[in-house]
Amino acid sequence: MIDIVTLFDYLGTFAFAISGVRLAAAKQFDIFGAYVVGFVTAVGGGTIRDLCLGLSPFWMIQPSYVIITALALLFTIIFRRWVVPLNVTFFLFDAIGLGLFTVVGLEKSLAAGFPFWVNIIMGSITGAAGGMFRDVLINEVPLIFRKDIYAVACVGGGIIYYILAVCGCPSIITQFITLASVILIRVLAVQFDVNLPSLRPLDEKMKKKQ
Amino acid sequence: MIDIVTLFDYLGTFAFAISGVRLAAAKQFDIFGAYVVGFVTAVGGGTIRDLCLGLSPFWMIQPSYVIITALALLFTIIFRRWVVPLNVTFFLFDAIGLGLFTVVGLEKSLAAGFPFWVNIIMGSITGAAGGMFRDVLINEVPLIFRKDIYAVACVGGGIIYYILAVCGCPSIITQFITLASVILIRVLAVQFDVNLPSLRPLDEKMKKKQ
Amino acid sequence: MIDIVTLFDYLGTFAFAISGVRLAAAKQFDIFGAYVVGFVTAVGGGTIRDLCLGLSPFWMIQPSYVIITALALLFTIIFRRWVVPLNVTFFLFDAIGLGLFTVVGLEKSLAAGFPFWVNIIMGSITGAAGGMFRDVLINEVPLIFRKDIYAVACVGGGIIYYILAVCGCPSIITQFITLASVILIRVLAVQFDVNLPSLRPLDEKMKKKQ
Repeated sequence: MIDIVTLFDYLGTFAFAISGVRLAAAKQFDIFGAYVVGFVTAVGGGTIRDLCLGLSPFWMIQPSYVIITALALLFTIIFRRWVVPLNVTFFLFDAIGLGLFTVVGLEKSLAAGFPFWVNIIMGSITGAAGGMFRDVLINEVPLIFRKDIYAVACVGGGIIYYILAVCGCPSIITQFITLASVILIRVLAVQFDVNLPSLRPLDEKMKKKQ
Repeated sequence: MIDIVTLFDYLGTFAFAISGVRLAAAKQFDIFGAYVVGFVTAVGGGTIRDLCLGLSPFWMIQPSYVIITALALLFTIIFRRWVVPLNVTFFLFDAIGLGLFTVVGLEKSLAAGFPFWVNIIMGSITGAAGGMFRDVLINEVPLIFRKDIYAVACVGGGIIYYILAVCGCPSIITQFITLASVILIRVLAVQFDVNLPSLRPLDEKMKKKQ
Repeated sequence: MIDIVTLFDYLGTFAFAISGVRLAAAKQFDIFGAYVVGFVTAVGGGTIRDLCLGLSPFWMIQPSYVIITALALLFTIIFRRWVVPLNVTFFLFDAIGLGLFTVVGLEKSLAAGFPFWVNIIMGSITGAAGGMFRDVLINEVPLIFRKDIYAVACVGGGIIYYILAVCGCPSIITQFITLASVILIRVLAVQFDVNLPSLRPLDEKMKKKQ
């Protein structure tokens, strides 16, 4: 039997892969292209984290992530009428995945001996960089840079993780509260349509600047 | 004297670099930009493979790939009228390169001790990821995601490689059949205009989904 | 007290981050997105270099680069009316950063035992790849591929570095002349509007070629 953390990890991977496959479908990618975009969305953040930490990418250890991405692709093809009505479900899976990926990134970076601010960055990269790569591959300006509280939920979770760890909170409770915080920040931000302030263009000629 | 594998490797690199330089020319890049795009097309896939496997990027060991890319750029500039009529020749070089890069990726991943499904992914990344990076750099939706059997030929070759290896086929024969398979799949797919099915957009509002 | 090299390194990082934040502002990114683009512009080149050399990314060792990027973002928000009038100042900081990053890349690659041509590539990646990643993230064709002498100044500096090293020039003088050369090439090229020749499109149908 797989434990509850693994289950959430797989649900999060599934939701991330679905988001990649959907956006690939919007650009009429073929099924292989959609698979690649789904896979990169699901594992891209963790891969960059592992390379920065000097580790083997996590998805090369066992084939779950390759298989789950294939299931996400199949699901999108076979049950395509269900995907849009299930938006809220996928949003929740995605939020759970975001929280769990953040905790995994924090833990892996801590275990590799890095200081707290690196851990927070690694947690955020694990959660949010996959969506950034996805948008680069489908040739769009990354959505997480323009709208919504997304990566900021990871940063918030990372700061809460650090505070709890400094206060001597037991590891399992720290992890759980961090996970819950990321999910809560993300869900509440979308629920109440909270966005970060946007920057305004500085000048018309700026693109002549290197 | 260089052996036949090295010759094919260099021809493939040349063809990959030409494809990068041509697309850079279409966007009116300067000669340095065209060189970078050609180089990334030629060595990008193998570089990601080597980083994932924990190895030094292969092109840092000896300068052939840097030199071949320069030759591809020079060729495109000096013999620019020949490039389009030579389309079929470059297509064949490109297919040979795709096959050879796939075999090299499979072998390197196997030698690093990874299981067969990682080897297949590494073979495909070696063959196809350079073209993906090329299209990201010229700011286009990656062509290999929308049209043609390209990366799928690498996956097909990887599966054939695995079956032959399991059957105890001698290494050199396995490599040759894999190489031939990738080239054949690629050439036949283009010859008979075989494409993977494309996905259709799921909904109009999908891009509001994170 | 921080020494002069560290001061220039920080000024260069600041100028690189400002250029990322400005272009993010032009696309109306939110403040987090602008931070990410600024950070990637400032540290992206050095990160690729360190991964290729098998080292930990330099910005994970101490938090200066994370802090300087935050200061660049704050500066752009608070003193936004000053940014455009300070164009020349930022251009000079940027040129100094380009030169210094090139020297750092050359030195790190040399210390890792690579031959001179790898060192030149690593110096150029350190100086110029951050701007390439920046343009990919804001979904524009990389500016350094189309206009201006930019990465070529790094290559020029790398060649001068190599010639001086072969001639037995003391290390500190070699570094200083290399730094000055990169800055001078960059400044003179912009001053006299020197550009590399651009390639012309080869054919109309080229994008059908894989």
